[in-house]
This record gives sequence, C-alpha cells and structure tokens, in this order.
Amino acid sequence: MNLLRKILPAWLTDYRHKNLAPDLTAGVIFTVLIIPQSLAYALLAGLPPQAGLYISIFPVMVYAIWGSSMVQAVGPVAITAIMTFTILSPIALPGSPEYIALAASLSLFSGALLVIFGLLRLGFLSQLLSRPVISGFISGSSVLIIISQLKSLLGVSYEGDDALGLLSALLHQLPNSNSDTLLIGLPALAILIFARYGLVSILTHLGIFPSRAAFIVRLTPLLVLLIATAVVVHFNLDRPGGVTVVGKVAEGLPGFSFFLPNYHSIKMLLVPALLMAIIGMVQGISMAQALAIKRQERIDANAELVGLGASNLVAAFYGGMPVGGGVSRSAVNVASGAQTPLASIVSAIAMIGVVAGGAHWFARLPLAVLAANIVVAAISMVDIKAFRLAWAYDHADALSLLGAAIGVVVFGLEGGIILGISLSLAAFLFRASIPHVAVVGRILGTEHFRNVERHETETLPEVLLLRVDESLFFGNLNAIETRLTLELEKAPDIHEVVLIMSAVNMVDTTAMEVLFELNRDLALRNIRLHFAEIKGPVHDRLIHSPIWKSLSGQVFISANAAFEALSTPKS
Amino acid sequence: MNLLRKILPAWLTDYRHKNLAPDLTAGVIFTVLIIPQSLAYALLAGLPPQAGLYISIFPVMVYAIWGSSMVQAVGPVAITAIMTFTILSPIALPGSPEYIALAASLSLFSGALLVIFGLLRLGFLSQLLSRPVISGFISGSSVLIIISQLKSLLGVSYEGDDALGLLSALLHQLPNSNSDTLLIGLPALAILIFARYGLVSILTHLGIFPSRAAFIVRLTPLLVLLIATAVVVHFNLDRPGGVTVVGKVAEGLPGFSFFLPNYHSIKMLLVPALLMAIIGMVQGISMAQALAIKRQERIDANAELVGLGASNLVAAFYGGMPVGGGVSRSAVNVASGAQTPLASIVSAIAMIGVVAGGAHWFARLPLAVLAANIVVAAISMVDIKAFRLAWAYDHADALSLLGAAIGVVVFGLEGGIILGISLSLAAFLFRASIPHVAVVGRILGTEHFRNVERHETETLPEVLLLRVDESLFFGNLNAIETRLTLELEKAPDIHEVVLIMSAVNMVDTTAMEVLFELNRDLALRNIRLHFAEIKGPVHDRLIHSPIWKSLSGQVFISANAAFEALSTPKS
Repeated sequence: MNLLRKILPAWLTDYRHKNLAPDLTAGVIFTVLIIPQSLAYALLAGLPPQAGLYISIFPVMVYAIWGSSMVQAVGPVAITAIMTFTILSPIALPGSPEYIALAASLSLFSGALLVIFGLLRLGFLSQLLSRPVISGFISGSSVLIIISQLKSLLGVSYEGDDALGLLSALLHQLPNSNSDTLLIGLPALAILIFARYGLVSILTHLGIFPSRAAFIVRLTPLLVLLIATAVVVHFNLDRPGGVTVVGKVAEGLPGFSFFLPNYHSIKMLLVPALLMAIIGMVQGISMAQALAIKRQERIDANAELVGLGASNLVAAFYGGMPVGGGVSRSAVNVASGAQTPLASIVSAIAMIGVVAGGAHWFARLPLAVLAANIVVAAISMVDIKAFRLAWAYDHADALSLLGAAIGVVVFGLEGGIILGISLSLAAFLFRASIPHVAVVGRILGTEHFRNVERHETETLPEVLLLRVDESLFFGNLNAIETRLTLELEKAPDIHEVVLIMSAVNMVDTTAMEVLFELNRDLALRNIRLHFAEIKGPVHDRLIHSPIWKSLSGQVFISANAAFEALSTPKS
Repeated sequence: MNLLRKILPAWLTDYRHKNLAPDLTAGVIFTVLIIPQSLAYALLAGLPPQAGLYISIFPVMVYAIWGSSMVQAVGPVAITAIMTFTILSPIALPGSPEYIALAASLSLFSGALLVIFGLLRLGFLSQLLSRPVISGFISGSSVLIIISQLKSLLGVSYEGDDALGLLSALLHQLPNSNSDTLLIGLPALAILIFARYGLVSILTHLGIFPSRAAFIVRLTPLLVLLIATAVVVHFNLDRPGGVTVVGKVAEGLPGFSFFLPNYHSIKMLLVPALLMAIIGMVQGISMAQALAIKRQERIDANAELVGLGASNLVAAFYGGMPVGGGVSRSAVNVASGAQTPLASIVSAIAMIGVVAGGAHWFARLPLAVLAANIVVAAISMVDIKAFRLAWAYDHADALSLLGAAIGVVVFGLEGGIILGISLSLAAFLFRASIPHVAVVGRILGTEHFRNVERHETETLPEVLLLRVDESLFFGNLNAIETRLTLELEKAPDIHEVVLIMSAVNMVDTTAMEVLFELNRDLALRNIRLHFAEIKGPVHDRLIHSPIWKSLSGQVFISANAAFEALSTPKS
C-alpha cells in the first residue's frame, strides 16, 4: 500500500467516494462539450481536425497523474494553436506531412523544456515576463487568431504574409464572400456572442441558479454546431462552391508514432519551442493557481511544469499537437462539475470512444461555425480592462502591454515578446535613472524625518539632509549630482551634507567613484559629506572602498543621530 | 568693451600678465614635443602623416576659444585614431582618396553630433556608459592599437580581417621580420618604456624636482626619434628592403577643403560617428574635469561638448581627421608649463611654421620608432588597476569591464561597447532581482529597527516585520514571496505581516497585482498584511489601486508605529 501511495497521485490514494458520481458525469459531459473546441483549435493550428481529439486522450491522462491542479483541463488551447500556426506556416504548408511532423517536434521540444524547467526548479524564469507583457502578448495573439479565422467565417480565400497583409487582402476580397457561408457563419457568431455576454445575466434574472446558467452557456457552442450541421445536411449546402465543411476525419485510435528529432528541426524549432514553453509555463501556472485559490487549494509550480511537460511529450507521439492549460477548457470542466482529475481520465476514455467510432459524424460540420467559435473565444481573450488598469496605475507598464500586443500583430510572436520585454526593462531602468530625491527635515517632537515639501519639519541652516530614494548606479548619478548642486546654490550657508541612504540598496563601482570625487570636491569648498542609515549589504562593500577612508564627515546610524550631532556647534 | 567681453572667452578678457611668459614658452615647447605623437596618430588612423600636423592648427585654435578647460590639449589622440581606422578600414583602402574623404566626413558628423549634444544639454547621455565599461573599452582599444602597430615595429607584412586574424598572421610572419627594423624599433621601444616607467623615480632620487623630471620624460620620445632618424640617415637604412620611413610629407599650409556629405556616407557613418561622439564626449569631459580639479577650477560640461564639437567640425575641413581631448597630449601641455589656452594658440601658430617650412624634415623618420611611441602610449592606457579595483569592489562590474575589453578585441568597437553596456545593465537587473530581504526587530530602548541577524533586537511572537531592500518589480516578486513563505513556515504563530517599505522606491503593475493576491491569500490563512514607511511617490500610486481598498491590515507611518499598535492584544 505504501508503494502504491508513492507511485499513485495523492488525489487517487486519498480519493473520497462522494466525488465519484460528479467526476463520472462531469467526464462524460465535458467530452461532448469540448468536441467543437478541440476540432476548431486543431484547424487553427493548421493540423487535421482529428489531432484535436487525439491529444484529448493520452496527454490528458498523463496530466491527470502528474499535474498539480485538481480541475485544470489540458488539451488543445487557443494560444498554443496560434503559436504553432505562426511558427510553422512560414516553413511548411499547413496540413502537409512535413507540417504535421514539425508540429509533433514542436510539441516534443516544448514538452522536454517544460519538464527540464520543472525538474531544475526553474519556474522563476517566467519572471522575465511582467504581467502587462503577458497580457499584451495574449491580446495581440487573439487579434492574430481573429484575423486568421475571418477567412473561414466569411467564406473568402486570399493569401498574405503577415497580419496586416492578410487584413488588406481580406478587404479586397470581401465582395467575393460566399453568401451561403455568410448565412451560416454570421448568425452562429451572433448567437455565440450573445450566449457569452448576455445569456447568463438573463438566465439569472429569470431565477436560474448561476452555476446552472453557466452550464447552459457552455452548452450553446455544441447546440449551434449541431443546428448548423443539420442545416448544411438538409439543404446540401456543402456542394462544390458552397459552404466549406471539415471533410473526411480519420477514424480509429491514434497510433503511437515514435520519431527522433533531427538536427535540422532542433536548430529551427528550439527558439520557438522555448518561447512556447515559457508562455505555456506562465499560462499553465497562473491558470492552475487561479483555480486553486477559488477552491482554497495550493499548487506546486514546479510539479505543474513537469505535468504540463510530460503531457506535451506524450502529445508529440500520440496526436502531434502541443497542448496547454486553457482558460475556457478548464471553465467547461468546472461547469461540468469536475471535482478531481478522475473527471479528466473519464473524459479521455470517453474520447477514445468518440475517435474510435464517431469520427465520421464530423465530416459535414461547417468550418464557418467552428471559426465563429474560435473568434468568440479570441474576443474574450483581448483584455482591454488590463490595459485600462495598467494605464491608471502606471503609464510605462501600460505602454509595455501595448508594445507587446502591437508587436505580436505587426512583427509576429517573437518580435512582440522581445519588444514587450525590452519596453518593460527599459521602463524599469528609466525609472531608476530619474530617482526621487528629497530634502528632509525632522517632524517636530519626533525622531522621524520626512520630505520638507510634504511635511511641517525643523531643519538646520548649516546642514542639508538629502534622501535619495534609489540605488546609486551609473545611470542616475548625474541626476543626483545636479539636484545636490541646485540645493547647495539655494542655500550657500550649508557646510554639512548628509546623504540618507535608507533607500539605497546598492552602490555600484561608478557610484562609489563618483561619491569619492564628490567628497573631495565638496571638501575643497569647505563642505563636509556625511552618510546616514547605510544598509548592511551596502555598508559591507563600502568599508573596503576608497571613499570610506577619505570621507570628510561621519557615518551615522540614523538621520536623527546626524541631526543631533550636527545641531551642536562645531568645536 | 562689453561687446568684446561677450565675444571673447573669459580667459582672454581677464588675462593675467604673469601668465604670458609661461604660456608663450609652453606653446613653443609643446609644438616641438608633440610632433612625433601627431605624425604617429595620423598613421595609426590610416591617414597621411601630415594630417596629424594639420589638425594641430585650426581645430586647436577653435577649442582654445570655445572649450571650457584651461589646459586640456585637443588634437590627434590614440582612441579617436584607432576608432577612425577600425571604422573606415573595412570600407576603404587606408590612405586612398576615398578613405581620406570618409575620415573628413567622420570628423564632420561626430563634430556636429557633439555640438548638438552640447547645445541640447545632452551631456547626461554619457551616463549610458558606466565607468567600468569605459575603462574596458579603452583597454580593449589599446590592445587593438598595439596589435595594429606590431607590423611596423617588427618590419613584417601581413593581412588579417580582425584582431585575432592579425595576431595569428603575425606569428606566422615573425621569422621574416626585417632585421634593420628590429635593430631600430626594439631599442627605441625599450628606451621609451624605461623613460615612462623608470626614469622619473630615478631622476627624483637624484634630487631633480618632480615637475622637471616629468618634463625630461616628455622629451624622451623626441630625442629617441631624432637619434633613430640620424642612424637611418647615416647608415642609409631606408634603402629598398630596409627600414620603412615616413616618406614624402606634403609641404605647405592645409587648404580649406569644403565638401557636403552625401546620403551614402551619412547612412554608412552615422552610427559609428555617434559612437565616436559618445566616446569623445566621455573622454573629453572626464579629462577636462580631472585637469580642472587639480587646478581647483570648474568646467561646464555642455560648453566643453560645444568646444570639442566645433573643433571637430573645423578639423573636417582643415586636415580631415577627428580630434579629441587626449591624456598624454594634455600631460605634455601641463609639463610644458601652459597656464591658459593662449599656450594652445601659440602652439597652433608655431605648427603653421612647421608645416609651411619644415615638413621635408620628417621624410626619413623610421616608422618603427613612431610605432614604438604608439605602443608605449597604448600600454599605458591598458588599465589593469581599474579591473583590480572593480573586482575588489564588485565582481559584476569587473565582468562588464572585462566584457567590454574582450568584446572590443574580438568583435570590434561597436560589438565591445554593446556587450559592455548589456553586461552592465544585466548586472543591475540581476542585482535588483535578488533583493536583500531582512526580518527586523526593535533595538532595545530605541525606535530603530534592524536586521534580527545582525543586531540584538526585540520581536513579537505574532508579528513578522519584513523589510524588502529593493523596488518591487516583476523581476523579484518570486524571490520575495519565497522568503515570506519560508518565514511563515518557520514561525506558524504569526498572524500579522508588516512589510516595511522604506527602501521600496517603486511598485510596478505586476507587483501591485501580486500584493493584491498575497493579501487575499494571507487572509484565507487568517494572517493580516500591513504596510509601513511607504514613500511618498509609491503611496501616491498605491492609494488608487485595488490593494489599498482590500488591504486586511493597516498602513503605518513607521515600523515603530506598527510595532506599538500590534504589540497590544487585539480587541
């Protein structure tokens, strides 16, 4: 039994019987609900539709065993699908055998990287991406997704090298839209948008329980697809020149297709796979965390990475499409009533039934309705609110969000993420280079020192107390020297300058040399330089540097100690 | 008279008679002493030797009028010369008419940029370069200079694309060295090295006044050159296959050669000219500042830029080689006894005499001895001490110094400076991403709070006082959360967490959101989150953010206020 406990996941060995019924029903309902999404995202990735069903089987089981979240559902998701498409479509024809092989390699590499990140506990690497950058990246990718789907939704055909080229080609081809496709696609789009943004509040107004209302909303895509397919079949709309449908879907279980990646594909796909792994990591962990908080559970970020990576490794050989932890997929899982990963295992088994026996059912699904599904999901991922919040809090962060979003649309995924990271680092450096410097005084009757411009304080005519609210480094020394010069010009009586270093967390080599020179220059003008409230780590460095020996003034433990010592007349 | 005061520089209108005699003699002596250097640096730049003399005339006069330093000597200097050579030699054949025209354009562009920087008061732009990066850049350039001169010094000929290629070609060609050249060059090198590193201390030991000893040392290059030339002439060593000499030097005053830069040269040279202007700016300002401090004078950095830029603009049309403010050139000026820029004007007039009448004197100067001069100057510019000091103070800064130096030698000037800047920014970001976080307690009997590991303090069993010594930004939140989790695990009794923000100078959007989530998660575990000592600018942002409304605890003005409030039992 102890051995079993070590091999099997905790949720299974500690399984509670009351969860069994909800997990079993949730698994079956989830499978049915998730079919449109799975087919759609496979098409979005440029792969045959069945790939979306295949990777809903074994990769899902692997995540159920190794992942750390109780209810996160992995599988084909919008971001990984559009990443797959934008990475691979410039190097191979979507749907071609070469393309399919490359997609499997991409899944393999990003899975391997995720497992390595998890085992080496490198989850902190995702820190390179600030939240505004992630948000901008997802919004930009969603715009890319929408642009890519307008083609199927409107029934036009055109080519374009990038997002802007596609859009202008679309505008030219718009008059040639297929009218049957429009008649199927646009109503479907309208219903799906209404279901997502209006239906819940109407249903709850009608007195329906919120969780039940959410379930009805999740049911809409399936209903819309069934009705649209019935229309297509009844009016025989999928005749040549009519509505494009999914077409032949391969039937039967996916084979285990083992392959070894070659040097060429490693060289070509390693950087994109790294980007994919990092985005997958950020998405997966934050999604798992959000779900865990709602259920008052905790997740282990590094275990989550191993689970996600292992799932992708299996996906490489059984289905050949990268998987991720998805927002809407997990929402469907929760709405279906899942309590533990057992629901996912049940759904994987149900999915085996679907692909083994029912794949021919999907042949006449209209692509326009699948596209409408994708567009609605993508619209919900464009996060205008995040931009508004960031703008209200900090313009620079809002700009890095916008930079990442526009960068993704204009320069592609890698360009966007690099632009976003560069902007966020530049914003950080820029802020550090214009430090807040305050002349401080003592608040009457206390030992506290505050900005003389914000508070009623007492000061000494001969003493300048200057607090620098930033680490001293090569980028901001000029600004600090300029401010000091200004203060000395305003008050020519000053003969004691006290630098209060309570907010100085680092003094780099350039700053140390500049302090040394400042001390010497001030001494020539008969002004002494003192330090107060130097932090431990800064102190440890400075005592071995030239400034320490040559300092004309003293080092005080606090601003108050400096104030007391310098307020008594010099002997 | 008032009008004259406005047009003429202050040093001239307020000229003191006692300076006249020293300035006149210094100007003449300086001219004679500086001739070998001027010829050598023109050759180093890949230009005809007389270019070095030409730009010692009008550009020097212009700087005397507009520059801000009393004794800085501008003219051909090592760094600008090697920069000219490395920028232009890949695009034109050194010494060719095209090359000469490009050198003039380079001078024009970098001069124009310097004037613009000065007028727009952009001197602070030089902050992009930390001192270790500048030091590494100069050391790396010096190594390039030495490698480029070994050819002339040893009398071998070879080609190479980069520094490493040149070195390996040199090693292959070493057995083919010209023996006459070696007999002239190596003794010259030995004498010059001895003069620079041994002579002063010997002379002062012999009782000679240090300033006089320095003057004698400065005389050595001229003496060595005279003797070597006498040897060449006497033994007719400059026969074909023998010692290479300067050869025909054009006689007469330089003409004013006006030109308008074309689009092609602007496109090709703008980035290198920018690099040259920035390096020239840093060099010129720091040199002028160092000289001013010794003389207890002050300089105006932006006026200095205008002076340096105007000097380069004139150099573009009268001589065609970029000028700079040089260490050794200024040292010669000071050693000659110069007191004001009048000395420079005198030397410019004397130089007119030299180029008008005496240029044929230089035809038989051996190149090997000029090369020896350059090598000795370059050796003195390799700053090992700066590396040792930086290493002792801060390893990361020392590595950015080393990166810039090695980068210059391996990847060229631009590659080196980019590598250096990247390393110094990366070091700054890396340090900010591993913040110092301290658990603090109250020092008994005071209101001061210090690290519990460094000081004897009192603490409260239910309260964790955590001081984060870094701005909170996306790059370090993980480290801070990890530390907090660790502290909470060590002390399960804690129900109050106080974040002391005295060293937090900024809270970015990601950090604000993480604090919001942290507050919520801690509340679920029945732990309240408090803030203390929030700085003004951080406070102003946070009050409008979600964390402010949802905060489970309080905001205290000081750590002590938090300590007092939380030490009384909760009501």
